[in-house]
Amino acid sequence: MMRKPRLYTPGPTLVPEAALSAMSRQMMHHRTAEFRRILAEVFEGLKEVFATSSDVLVLSSSGTGAMEAAVVNLVPRGGKAIVLESGKFAERWRILCERFGIEVVRYELPWGEAFKPQRVAVLLREHPDTTAVFSTLMETSTGVGHDIEGIGRVVKENGRALFVVDGISGVGAVECRTDTWGIDVLVVGAQKALMTPPGLAFLAVSPRAWKQIEANTARPAFYFDLLAYRKALETADTPYTPAIPLILALAESLKQLRAVGMETIWNGTRVLAAAFRAGIQALGLKLAAARPADGMTAVFFPEGIDGKAFLGRLEERFGIKLAGGQGPWKGNIFRMAHFGMIGELDVLSTLAALELLLHEVNPTVQLGLAVAAAMSIIATNHLN
Amino acid sequence: MMRKPRLYTPGPTLVPEAALSAMSRQMMHHRTAEFRRILAEVFEGLKEVFATSSDVLVLSSSGTGAMEAAVVNLVPRGGKAIVLESGKFAERWRILCERFGIEVVRYELPWGEAFKPQRVAVLLREHPDTTAVFSTLMETSTGVGHDIEGIGRVVKENGRALFVVDGISGVGAVECRTDTWGIDVLVVGAQKALMTPPGLAFLAVSPRAWKQIEANTARPAFYFDLLAYRKALETADTPYTPAIPLILALAESLKQLRAVGMETIWNGTRVLAAAFRAGIQALGLKLAAARPADGMTAVFFPEGIDGKAFLGRLEERFGIKLAGGQGPWKGNIFRMAHFGMIGELDVLSTLAALELLLHEVNPTVQLGLAVAAAMSIIATNHLN
Repeated sequence: MMRKPRLYTPGPTLVPEAALSAMSRQMMHHRTAEFRRILAEVFEGLKEVFATSSDVLVLSSSGTGAMEAAVVNLVPRGGKAIVLESGKFAERWRILCERFGIEVVRYELPWGEAFKPQRVAVLLREHPDTTAVFSTLMETSTGVGHDIEGIGRVVKENGRALFVVDGISGVGAVECRTDTWGIDVLVVGAQKALMTPPGLAFLAVSPRAWKQIEANTARPAFYFDLLAYRKALETADTPYTPAIPLILALAESLKQLRAVGMETIWNGTRVLAAAFRAGIQALGLKLAAARPADGMTAVFFPEGIDGKAFLGRLEERFGIKLAGGQGPWKGNIFRMAHFGMIGELDVLSTLAALELLLHEVNPTVQLGLAVAAAMSIIATNHLN
Repeated sequence: MMRKPRLYTPGPTLVPEAALSAMSRQMMHHRTAEFRRILAEVFEGLKEVFATSSDVLVLSSSGTGAMEAAVVNLVPRGGKAIVLESGKFAERWRILCERFGIEVVRYELPWGEAFKPQRVAVLLREHPDTTAVFSTLMETSTGVGHDIEGIGRVVKENGRALFVVDGISGVGAVECRTDTWGIDVLVVGAQKALMTPPGLAFLAVSPRAWKQIEANTARPAFYFDLLAYRKALETADTPYTPAIPLILALAESLKQLRAVGMETIWNGTRVLAAAFRAGIQALGLKLAAARPADGMTAVFFPEGIDGKAFLGRLEERFGIKLAGGQGPWKGNIFRMAHFGMIGELDVLSTLAALELLLHEVNPTVQLGLAVAAAMSIIATNHLN
């Protein structure tokens, strides 16, 4: 039979129809009042989604480009940074710092574990000359949701280091109160919970971070020089030609996010995650994350299952595209997003598909248990 | 009456319907066989358009990002570069080099003038330790088309410097034989003659340039580290999530360019430029460029005309969007593209609109002369 594609990976994610259609509009010039109006609306929308009153900058690049921008603008060559490293994306902070000649103090944990704020406090006291602490809101490679609120508090209480958070895949789905939590630089990507195609990345920059950037005069940056983006903000502009269709798509997706409201979205994400995990538990499967983020779930395959073949079969049989594992977890886990346009029925469908496929391999798997477990969570948490 | 928009600026430019529609497709995952097939086709198409058998890399950034990539990958901090500087975009080469600690030997000319290959030869003999020569195919701020073939020859004959060309706005419209002309690194943007929305940029990298990049181990680059892009090429991939809808649009636009063929397109561009300039001459107006590129024309406004107001009126009356001047030429010139979907009738329409508006200001302007002059060029050069 025909199978419609169901893209449930933690990015790229499904994009609303209105945003897709917006991209098929004929080009307009970007140095016009009309385009600046759209950009101004985008800047406002991003501030609301990021829960910040700081400047928000729009880069035409992948999320990695915005991570590089955070590193090279904040920390001078020879400066010191604390990197919280566990998983593939946290590791990228370290590699970026090393590439640009920054001394790295590593707080490293095995994949799947969660950072302890108190350990960060100790490191900050041991290294009072730290310029910035680099951390991750939702580690997409492991599904861990780190305690950014707690870490933000100890960063504030222990010296003058700036607090930088990779929120690329979590922001827009899971609670992230940029200003309240003391995040100085928040990095976000378009293609995750913001329901926009890849190609745009964002930074929210606090007044304290701007001071450090201004002082860091030898920053090795031109395309990623954040002062150029701030200057362009004055006229609701970007310093270089932006990816126009992606901006138009983002404007539509932001409208939809704002219409629902961030508190409602954050709560809905929590319920989806709880429902999916209840189902996973009923199946007897094990979560990969010690402290799971709500925006996604990573699950170990049961013993004896060929992960790659299983995910191929899931797509072939049901059109469901989940992500596999990366690095040391390649072939060992599958990952599903709980953000954007993914709703209750997508979670239930995925659990049903998992049950059917696992039942094929092992007929003692009882059909419907996982779905029922998830349904009982959904039934007791009314979502708007 | 209703006015349909006519976007005739030298970028962003009109995008074919098929490319616009391709962008409204729901997201697919980028690490899939289907997407890799599309990317592989894009890499092949770009090679044909760039007239090269070298590796072509696809970056999700504006053209400026690819210029930065060329600078930081090729020339080490403390190394030496010759920059051919005349106009806003050539100036960007110098600013980029300076930002990354490269010693710049400037061959500077007033805006609107064209570089002499023999002067480049002299500079290369004076500076045998030059790592790279940075130049521009079509300087969009002035409309000058530089003698890249001639400069390429003297670079080859005078030492071991690499030859880098900013072809952002010219390639795909004007003759550019990357391999034959000895271009080691060619930088191209999506939103000009490639008829694709902004947000993608490309580099063609010669084997000689790859050797230099490999030797330049301390290059301050991560997002723009070209070795990562080359490694990803092996599996028809990009190192970071690409701007998927823009890749789909590019695939469509490349199909259309290849169907016509580059020789035919280069010739057509020449005829359009000659026709437009015949009209401009008939109007008694003066070209801004000493050696005009065929991909666009920059024209001085006649004395006593307020440039900004005139261009506003052109758009309001006829829907025609032309570009004004930049930097020292702000308010002094207008610029029209002759590439992409702009054809003979667009050139004639624009001349007619210019005649009508100039006639309003000065009733002695004889109507139809410019259009007729352009038509006689078109009549004697049959375009496919």
